[in-house]
Order: sequence, then structure tokens, then C-alpha cells
Amino acid sequence: MQNADLIVFPKWIATVDNADTVLTEHALVICDGVIKDILPADFARQSYQSPRTFDLPEHLVCPGFVNVHTHAAMSLLRGVADDLPLMDWLQGHIWPAEAAHVSPRFCRDGVRLAAAEMIRAGVTTFNDMYFFPDVTAEVVEQCGMRAMIGLIVLDFPTKWASNAEDYLRKGLELKDQLSGKPLIRTALAPHAPYTVSDEPLRNIRKFANELSIPIHMHVHETAFEVADAEEKNGARPWQRLKDLGVVGPDLIAVHMTQLTDEEVRDCAEYGISVAHCPESNLKLASGFCRIGDLEKAGVNIAIGTDGAASNNDLDMLSEIRTAALLSKAVAKDASSFPAHAALRAATMGGAKALGWDDETGSIEKNKSADFICIDMSDVNTSPIFDPVAQLIYAANSRQITHSFVAGKALMENRNLMTLDEDLVLATAHEWGQRIRNASANETAD
Amino acid sequence: MQNADLIVFPKWIATVDNADTVLTEHALVICDGVIKDILPADFARQSYQSPRTFDLPEHLVCPGFVNVHTHAAMSLLRGVADDLPLMDWLQGHIWPAEAAHVSPRFCRDGVRLAAAEMIRAGVTTFNDMYFFPDVTAEVVEQCGMRAMIGLIVLDFPTKWASNAEDYLRKGLELKDQLSGKPLIRTALAPHAPYTVSDEPLRNIRKFANELSIPIHMHVHETAFEVADAEEKNGARPWQRLKDLGVVGPDLIAVHMTQLTDEEVRDCAEYGISVAHCPESNLKLASGFCRIGDLEKAGVNIAIGTDGAASNNDLDMLSEIRTAALLSKAVAKDASSFPAHAALRAATMGGAKALGWDDETGSIEKNKSADFICIDMSDVNTSPIFDPVAQLIYAANSRQITHSFVAGKALMENRNLMTLDEDLVLATAHEWGQRIRNASANETAD
Repeated sequence: MQNADLIVFPKWIATVDNADTVLTEHALVICDGVIKDILPADFARQSYQSPRTFDLPEHLVCPGFVNVHTHAAMSLLRGVADDLPLMDWLQGHIWPAEAAHVSPRFCRDGVRLAAAEMIRAGVTTFNDMYFFPDVTAEVVEQCGMRAMIGLIVLDFPTKWASNAEDYLRKGLELKDQLSGKPLIRTALAPHAPYTVSDEPLRNIRKFANELSIPIHMHVHETAFEVADAEEKNGARPWQRLKDLGVVGPDLIAVHMTQLTDEEVRDCAEYGISVAHCPESNLKLASGFCRIGDLEKAGVNIAIGTDGAASNNDLDMLSEIRTAALLSKAVAKDASSFPAHAALRAATMGGAKALGWDDETGSIEKNKSADFICIDMSDVNTSPIFDPVAQLIYAANSRQITHSFVAGKALMENRNLMTLDEDLVLATAHEWGQRIRNASANETAD
Repeated sequence: MQNADLIVFPKWIATVDNADTVLTEHALVICDGVIKDILPADFARQSYQSPRTFDLPEHLVCPGFVNVHTHAAMSLLRGVADDLPLMDWLQGHIWPAEAAHVSPRFCRDGVRLAAAEMIRAGVTTFNDMYFFPDVTAEVVEQCGMRAMIGLIVLDFPTKWASNAEDYLRKGLELKDQLSGKPLIRTALAPHAPYTVSDEPLRNIRKFANELSIPIHMHVHETAFEVADAEEKNGARPWQRLKDLGVVGPDLIAVHMTQLTDEEVRDCAEYGISVAHCPESNLKLASGFCRIGDLEKAGVNIAIGTDGAASNNDLDMLSEIRTAALLSKAVAKDASSFPAHAALRAATMGGAKALGWDDETGSIEKNKSADFICIDMSDVNTSPIFDPVAQLIYAANSRQITHSFVAGKALMENRNLMTLDEDLVLATAHEWGQRIRNASANETAD
């Protein structure tokens, strides 16, 4: 008998290995935070002993979801302004609210709220872009999630930094401080083509090469962004990013709702990853990302919720479903982005985008034990013909009962293990009142 | 002190009255299945006494959802075939599975499964179209939901009837049998333009007029349907339905993804209701319904999940969210179909479509006590600025804790009161095995 730290006995395991293997009546054996073995349940009972076992006879186990684009702290601004176009929403509501409220404390409380929501929704890894990334990293470490912290860069001043140079300097300092933390990595995060000018973008490419870290950026989010840039710079933002050398296999291009056929081919040729955020794109009427065409061209597709201010939730399972459903209508092909492809995008696709697929994104031997367990026995997922199709098209995120990162439980039987949920809720409630009051005072002025 | 049967004290009530009033700290007073009063909570405590009260200090109360188009029994075929275009899916999978399995028992067990799922998702009224509508009506009565039973008509034989005349005869007999049941009504339900020929459609119009019951029909679901009809009949199905007299204020036209500007104007002029089923339209790549344009033209919009075989769930709250999100991108206008309009479509819009808005669809004095309670205190709905926006854009259907129809509890504290959920699940599981085995045997032959 070999020793293990934890053995899980689910009904099914959707491995998301290269063959999309779905195993029935197999066990997942965890040791030292790593997947030590995956073998038939009967054999596991004969070969391994462990102080902890989970018998989950109605559950599907799959890799934890990789939320490839979010602004976690913004969960405190969830629903502060709805049903408005991107630029009105940003300039008239979000940016003023941020100017009034964003602080290290706002970020700490906002990221905790987001982390609680994301863990409940099956996210084990997220890719963040926001102010005070040092605070985000601190909360991430406390709550045990895996995260890529964006070193945000803008031309204009905010409470976090004063100009592009200052953002970059602070970001690179943070990168150094975070080195050696196994669950935290960093990416350079120039906000968008319309908020970062040429020189910092050239520097960002230089640092990305030197430090071997990805570039995480909003690109072609709206038709307005493209038309405006064409008028101002005589070129589409994508062309400008190519000219500046920003486009490369380490680019995580977020949104990409405006793509010509040539740009779709470019995405494949340069080997970029597209971070698809369908619900944000719909809600802000930004447009439709051509997932079907990108998939056919061989582009790596990943899925993100965007921030809760624009979505308005961080329910990754619901986001995956929207991606899978929407792609078919946009491609006019009901076989586009099928359930297994959608699960792959939300797990391995995300891990690849972050350059972290050697450690996470699938359930395979020697990879980190980042996985979730979903109770498939509810009425809305009964009966079951294909558990993966049922997960993507019918399961509710509340059916996710357990979540593990590097073998550590973040959620067990729907209880959060690393966050004090009552405190998180009370703090969110206080922020809600503070933001409402500030807004009422402003109106009164 | 006046007597009441039940008083509910929630944080908010979204009434969906003509002014979309949202009340805070009000009480809902129920007597004899009817809303007797809506008044400030303090006054209610002084004026009414009741053997039952619910204190729900974190809850939003809103009208129960009206699922304006479904095929309830098909929940047993949920996920039997995915990621296929409409005609392949129907002809290659669904119709053969129906030919093999549909029976009164299939319908009884399928409708029970669907009812359990719909009650959990906040549906209090649904509009059904399927075989053995007598069985559907029986289950509906047992589980206490409000429903409009479609008297299905097709040209071709099924286990329920042999030809259009036979369908109509059986349907009208059933209508008579169901008269006098307060929560059950009937509609004439010709399946679609491509499955019902001219003569039965003329008869259906005649009976609709004589009996004052609506016509519930799939119309312009796909581009193929329209192109095929143009080729075969030299006219778009909509034109043919107008010529046959089918189009009128009692028509519930389901899907309507293919509409010219003139047809949008027709919808308004004839006063029809459009039953929007966005997730089914996306999943089968049928197309996009122009909700924004229909709304501007003044057409009554209602929302439906469609059957679970094509969606693959009956999560009405998720369907409302998809409708609200999708409309903005299709209309290229982020202010299209805002949260309050989406809630209205899913409640009053549905009630109007069914001609039942005198009794249900809003929380107003003297209307039937058809309402749901949603616990808004979860992380994904915190903080709260506008409870209706938070319901539509961020709440999970699992936050629905209570459901009442005509004052009777169908769900209390997430427990189903009128259905044996364990039995429903065990039966669904058995059907899953039977359908899988039949399919395996067929492959083996």
C-alpha cells in the first residue's frame, strides 16, 4: 500500500487531456499537492491508503476553471450602473466611482468578495488586471487560489501610479516581491490600445521578452475603439500593436470582438491567445467574438468573466455556457464550440494563455491538484447521457461542492475553507452603503 | 385586526405594475389565494393577523415567472443529442427517440421532472406543447402550478393522434374535460408552419375564435424554414399564416428569429405576442430574434426556455438573463431590453401572451398570489444597488427559496412541497438507463 494525502472517488473524471478522456469509476490520488495517480477505483482501494478520502458517487470531477480575464476588486461596483454603452458606463459611472472609492482597502475587500464568488463558481486560477495589484496578490495568497497578477499600465494617473513609467516601475517591483510564491505569477497588463501610448508599449514588449511573462491587454473590445483609432492614428489598433511588436505568442488579447478575416489569420500565425468574455461583450453591446472562426484557424481560446461591474457576476460556469451557446449562433453552425471544446477553453485554454499549462488546466499525473467536484444528481442535470454536455449546458454553479488548488481544499461540501464568508458579506454590504451614500451626496450637491 | 392566510415580509417587492414600482419594507398580505393588500410592513403588523408569516429580511419578492414556451415532458431527453443543427437534431435524434419512448408514462415522468426544475427556477406558470396533453394537465394539477396546455396539432401520426383532424378532436375533448379547473387553461397548438397544412390551420383559427383561446405555434424558427417554404409555397411562412387568418392578437409566435422590418411592423399591428427562447435559438444556431426592434415597435415580448432537450435546462432566470444580455448586442445598443424590461417580459409579458394577465403576472391587489422569494444576500449579489438589476444580471436561480401559486406554497425554504423529489430523480434515472440501452441496442443491430 502506498500513502497518499487525499483520494477522491467520483462517478466521472473529465480529464481534459489531449484526447478529452472522460473516465468512469476512477479515483484521483493526491500527494504533496500533485496528482500522483488516476486509476480505476477498485485498484485505488487496493493500492493506496490515505487519511482523507471523499466518496462522491454522483459527482463529476474536472479541472478547476481558469478565469482568464477579470478585475476582481470591481465586484464592489457590481450593478452600480447598468444598461449603458461602454464609454458612458466607463466615463460617466465607473471611472468616477473608482476615483472616489478605490484604495488598498477597497481592493482588499473587493478581491475577497470576488474570490469567494469565484471559488463557489469553480474558478481555481484567475488572471487579474486592476489597481493595487500588491493587495490583490496578498488576498490571493490568503485564500489559496492560483492567480496571475496583472501589472497594470495606463498613461494617466490613478491612485496607484502617476504615469506609464511609474506604473511599470511599481509593477516590476511587485513582480520581484512576488517571486518564489508558487501559486502567484505576474503579467504585464497595459490596459488597452486607447489608454497606453507607443513608448510604454515598446517597453512592455521589451520587459515581456526579458522576464518571460505574458502581456494581458484589452484589444478590439468595441467597434468604436477601432473606428476611433483609425481616425486618430490612421490604423486599426491591431495593426498598431503588430507594428509596436506587442503581438506575439505571449499576448492574451481580451475581447477581440472586431476582427477581419486577415486578423483572424494573424491571431493563428502569431500564436496569441484570445480571452473571450461573452457576457461582458453582450451586456455592453460591444459585439460578438468570432470564436468559431478562431477555433477553425487554430487559435488558443480561453474564457473570462470580465469584472463583476460589467457582467455582473463571476459565475464562470454560466460564462462557459454562454460562450458555447453564443458561438453556434454567431458561426451559424450548431456544431461550433461543442461542450467538450468549451470545457477545454475554460481549463487548458486558459492555462495555455497564461503559459501555466505545465502545472494546471487538466487532470493528468504529475500536474498540480487543481480540480473541482460537481454534484450531478440534481433535477436540472437528470438524466445524464454525457456528463460533460450536462455540465456545460445544464448544470448550475451551485452544484459545485468542492474545490482544490495544489491539493488544498478551498471549498468542501459548499463551505469556503480559506475565507470568512460572513465577514466578506458584511464588508461588501458596508461598501454598498458607502458607495450609495457618496452617490446620493453627489446628486444633492 | 383583519385576518389573512399568509403575510410575507421581504426586503423588497418588485411589483411589475404599470410603473415598475419596487417597494422597500412592505408586506404582502394573502387571503383566499389572492393578494389582499400590499402595505408598509409596520402598518401590516398593526392591521393584519395571520397564522402564517414569513420574515424574509434579505429577500426580493417578485411575480412568479411565466415560461411562455416549453415541451415539459422532453426533460427526459435532456442532452440525448447536442451540438447538432435543428433538422439533424430533430430528424436524426429527437423524433426517433420520441417514436421509441413517448407514452403516457414517459409524459407523466417527464412533466414531473420538468415541474420540479421549473418550480426551483421560479416558474409559476408555463405554456406547454407536447403529446399526451391530458397527462401533462394531470401532473400540473397535482403539483399546483398554473399552466396553459397546448392542444398539439400535426399533419402526421404520432402515438397521441393519427392526423390533423384526430389531433384537433382529441384536443377539443381535452379542453372540455379541463373546464372548471382554475389553474389550467388550453391553447390550440399547431406545431409549426412546416408540419401543419392549410386546412387544419383554417380550422384552428375558427376554433380559436369560437372558444376564445390562444394559438401557440413555432414560427420562423430558422432561416432554413423560411427559405424552404419560399421554395415550396412561394411565400414566407409569416405571409402564409397571415393569408390563412392565423395571425391575430391571440397568436403566441415562438422563436421568430427571421423577421423583415415589415414583419416587425406586422407583429405590432396584429398585436401578436412573441415568445422569445434565446438559449434554444443560440444552441441550435437558429438565429437571433430582434427583441430590441420588436420592443420599440410596441410588440408584447414574453420569454420561454423551450424544451430541455434543446436548451438544455428549464432555468428561467438564466434564460431571462440571456435574453437581456443578448438583446443589447443584437440591437448594438447597451440600453436595449434593460433589467426591468426583461423582468416584465418574463412575468407580465408572458401573462399577456397567454391572455391571463387579469389573474397573474404582477403583484397587485386582487390578483392571484403567484409570486417567488429570492434570497439576495449571497456573495454573487452583493452589494446591492438596484435589486431588480441584481436579480436579472447576477442572481443564481438557486437563490429562489419560496414559490407560491394562488397562495399555495409549491416551494418553501428550497423544499418542494407538492412533488416527491427523490421519486422524481429515481424515475428520471431509470428513464436515462432505458433510453441509453435502447440507443445501444439500436447501434448494435
